[in-house]
Amino acid sequence: MVEAITNIVGQKSIIHRFEDVMAYECDGYTIHKGIPSAVIFPSNTEEVSEVVTYLHRHQIPFIPRGAGTGLSGGATALNGEVIISLVRMNKLLHVDYCNRKAIVQPGYINLKLSNSIASKGYYYAPDPSSQATCTIGGNVGENAGGAHCLKYGVTTNHVLGLEVVLPNGHIRRFGGVLDMPGYDVLGLLTGSEGTLGIVTEITVRILKKPQSASTVLALFDQVADASQAASDIIASGIIPAALEMMDNMAIHGVESGNYPVGYPKDLAAVLIVEVDGIAAGLEEQIDEIMNVCKKHHVREVRKAKDAAERARWWANRKTAFGAMGKISPDYLVQDGVIPRSKLPEVLEKISQISRHYGLRIANVFHAGDGNLHPLILFDSRIEGETERAVEAGSAVLKACADAGGSITGEHGVGIEKLDDMRFIFNEIEIEAQTQLRDVFNPLSLCNPHKLFPKPARCVEMKRMETASMS
Amino acid sequence: MVEAITNIVGQKSIIHRFEDVMAYECDGYTIHKGIPSAVIFPSNTEEVSEVVTYLHRHQIPFIPRGAGTGLSGGATALNGEVIISLVRMNKLLHVDYCNRKAIVQPGYINLKLSNSIASKGYYYAPDPSSQATCTIGGNVGENAGGAHCLKYGVTTNHVLGLEVVLPNGHIRRFGGVLDMPGYDVLGLLTGSEGTLGIVTEITVRILKKPQSASTVLALFDQVADASQAASDIIASGIIPAALEMMDNMAIHGVESGNYPVGYPKDLAAVLIVEVDGIAAGLEEQIDEIMNVCKKHHVREVRKAKDAAERARWWANRKTAFGAMGKISPDYLVQDGVIPRSKLPEVLEKISQISRHYGLRIANVFHAGDGNLHPLILFDSRIEGETERAVEAGSAVLKACADAGGSITGEHGVGIEKLDDMRFIFNEIEIEAQTQLRDVFNPLSLCNPHKLFPKPARCVEMKRMETASMS
Repeated sequence: MVEAITNIVGQKSIIHRFEDVMAYECDGYTIHKGIPSAVIFPSNTEEVSEVVTYLHRHQIPFIPRGAGTGLSGGATALNGEVIISLVRMNKLLHVDYCNRKAIVQPGYINLKLSNSIASKGYYYAPDPSSQATCTIGGNVGENAGGAHCLKYGVTTNHVLGLEVVLPNGHIRRFGGVLDMPGYDVLGLLTGSEGTLGIVTEITVRILKKPQSASTVLALFDQVADASQAASDIIASGIIPAALEMMDNMAIHGVESGNYPVGYPKDLAAVLIVEVDGIAAGLEEQIDEIMNVCKKHHVREVRKAKDAAERARWWANRKTAFGAMGKISPDYLVQDGVIPRSKLPEVLEKISQISRHYGLRIANVFHAGDGNLHPLILFDSRIEGETERAVEAGSAVLKACADAGGSITGEHGVGIEKLDDMRFIFNEIEIEAQTQLRDVFNPLSLCNPHKLFPKPARCVEMKRMETASMS
Repeated sequence: MVEAITNIVGQKSIIHRFEDVMAYECDGYTIHKGIPSAVIFPSNTEEVSEVVTYLHRHQIPFIPRGAGTGLSGGATALNGEVIISLVRMNKLLHVDYCNRKAIVQPGYINLKLSNSIASKGYYYAPDPSSQATCTIGGNVGENAGGAHCLKYGVTTNHVLGLEVVLPNGHIRRFGGVLDMPGYDVLGLLTGSEGTLGIVTEITVRILKKPQSASTVLALFDQVADASQAASDIIASGIIPAALEMMDNMAIHGVESGNYPVGYPKDLAAVLIVEVDGIAAGLEEQIDEIMNVCKKHHVREVRKAKDAAERARWWANRKTAFGAMGKISPDYLVQDGVIPRSKLPEVLEKISQISRHYGLRIANVFHAGDGNLHPLILFDSRIEGETERAVEAGSAVLKACADAGGSITGEHGVGIEKLDDMRFIFNEIEIEAQTQLRDVFNPLSLCNPHKLFPKPARCVEMKRMETASMS
């Protein structure tokens, strides 16, 4: 296999010795690991296609990988699969300002796009916390979100077209214009976690930078007050560009990180609320946001005095995950979604889970979207604590699902949430989705054993049922 | 069959005599017609499920239908299929203002939703011209758009959850929360033109009404100036709530309709540009829009002086299709999409097509989206003119596809654009999509012979079939 692939991509574009490939034993989700049998670095679509054609012919499973910043194990080679890394396909191919779109290769880094078009007054909206390192190809695979997705939508709302190498090696294009007839295959591919093919080119929407932005920081003594204020801000009719919340434990984390803001350590919660748009309209919204906070017993509420202060608040917020390393040897980040109105109820449930498992849980969340990121702190050196953290994470997701929510907002299912899929879908619903997968990936060679749990024992029965209904 | 179905839905909920069902010979697309063998009016999901289970068991093809306002023949029973009308499932089931969503039955009328929640300051964004009569179930089937979709997105951006009766009669639910793990089946169902199942309940996003709105009317002596102004308004960074354009012929039409505005008859084009949001920000945008128009030799540009005048402009615009009946015995509306920058080029091409086929073509379009609605005027009493109009329509769609666009923005493929799908997709791409259909609808009982053309080798056969039917 190594020789055949070397003939396609060249010697410098494949690694396979244990000491070389061990760096690829996991992505940003570190609970489960696996060593790939090789890592291949194709330079263009044709090479991806030739490599996949070869692997398909020999029925060798493979996994596409971007920067490896994913948080659910989607790019991990649990069973020694071959990894196809897209990091060398890292070019910005075309920018069309008039029609507001850009074409990038999958290994192009998210933040680079905004930086490249900033001088013309444009930017790319989806902004995951890892945006300085994550790739747009990976963002497409996971349908990545970010703090500013409340107003602007997640990755799928910004993908206009894709070039994909299907699991059999064929190159196909989907979308490319505003609205295509037929089925929304583009939407199906986005967020499919690498199970339907390998994205080799992406056309994304670019947006004109808002004329102005303004940010409010609100410090609360009660989590319930902060949640209610978040809910009421939305109910007032304002759609903030971002509405973020951190609880006391998370504040302790970010204040130990590289960009401390100076939050009082006894705070129960902080809200960061940003509005953007035409400058003339912002003051009125800021006043309204501050008024709502005051109605809910805010300790202190103020507007960023300049762009530098605003940037400091965001730098601090974006370190929230990483900063956990300063207050705990290990942490596990979860990614539940709930209806906004259930915030206080689910937060109380999370605090019960924390007590039950004897593990600290910090909460960082996109409050406007109801997208929670509980960070479960643990110490893997203590026997059984890793398992307890995983169980606590699953319990949190069950609480979200029970509240009418979902088990992932933006991090994906990957390996991590395979079993948790059953909180949301029954066997028949999972089976229906694997049938969709089989249309593109019938041999399940492309990112196998991800996204959908293996069928339960009743699967044979159901197969019969499916057969009889068709 | 009639007896068995009568046992399920009751005698008052099925019609089958020729004189009763002939009213259902077509939808808003009148070129091809067909008489259904029966029309069934179920009252609830269980009845839909029982009816479909029966039809599936006996392999009788069926077609879901809303108000029958569709413009591509998607609800027409070309081959005597049974029509399942959802008009009696017309209730608003639930409104959740806190989480900003509403649950409706498929036969609920689009505009009724906005009217029902208006007193609380909310509305439902997608606003097709037929919104006073079309149903939300039909909107989901066709992924309907509307004048205000430029800023707010089309139906798929507002559907949060669906209950669907699959083609085998099983009842399934998809979505319901912000973001579901697994594949985006909700997106796949939306716009699938009734080929994947029958929608029986819809959860939609509702929006807070913008605090204020302001509308500009700009009258131009040159179409090229109007198109360039439209393009420059978007390029300036403003995202108007709507940016509509009508050309001279369309203006003649609307001025003959029920809501004339008093446009000069010699105008080349009119732009209607609406902005909405926080009141304080609007004036600045209006000034900018007026300035852009002035740079492009506008004859006259002015702001609506009050809500009444704004409403008159929109009433006039929304009659554009219907008003064609006043200036032509028949008309065929097309629905192409192009990159905004190609507006002048494609308009010139349409004018060539008009001359070539000797048929007048009026242009009404969502200029901001690049979504054209050329109205091809003809007289079906003149031999060969209907066929010429159909050919001219197809030529227009080819011009859009050649310009990097698409053959439908919001009206769907239905029967009308089956062959035009080949302007966009090759055989393999069509085959891949029919495989997706087969996952849900393996016997193709549910809305057969719609959306996808038959494989190339059967094309000749189908042409003959279509001819014999019309």
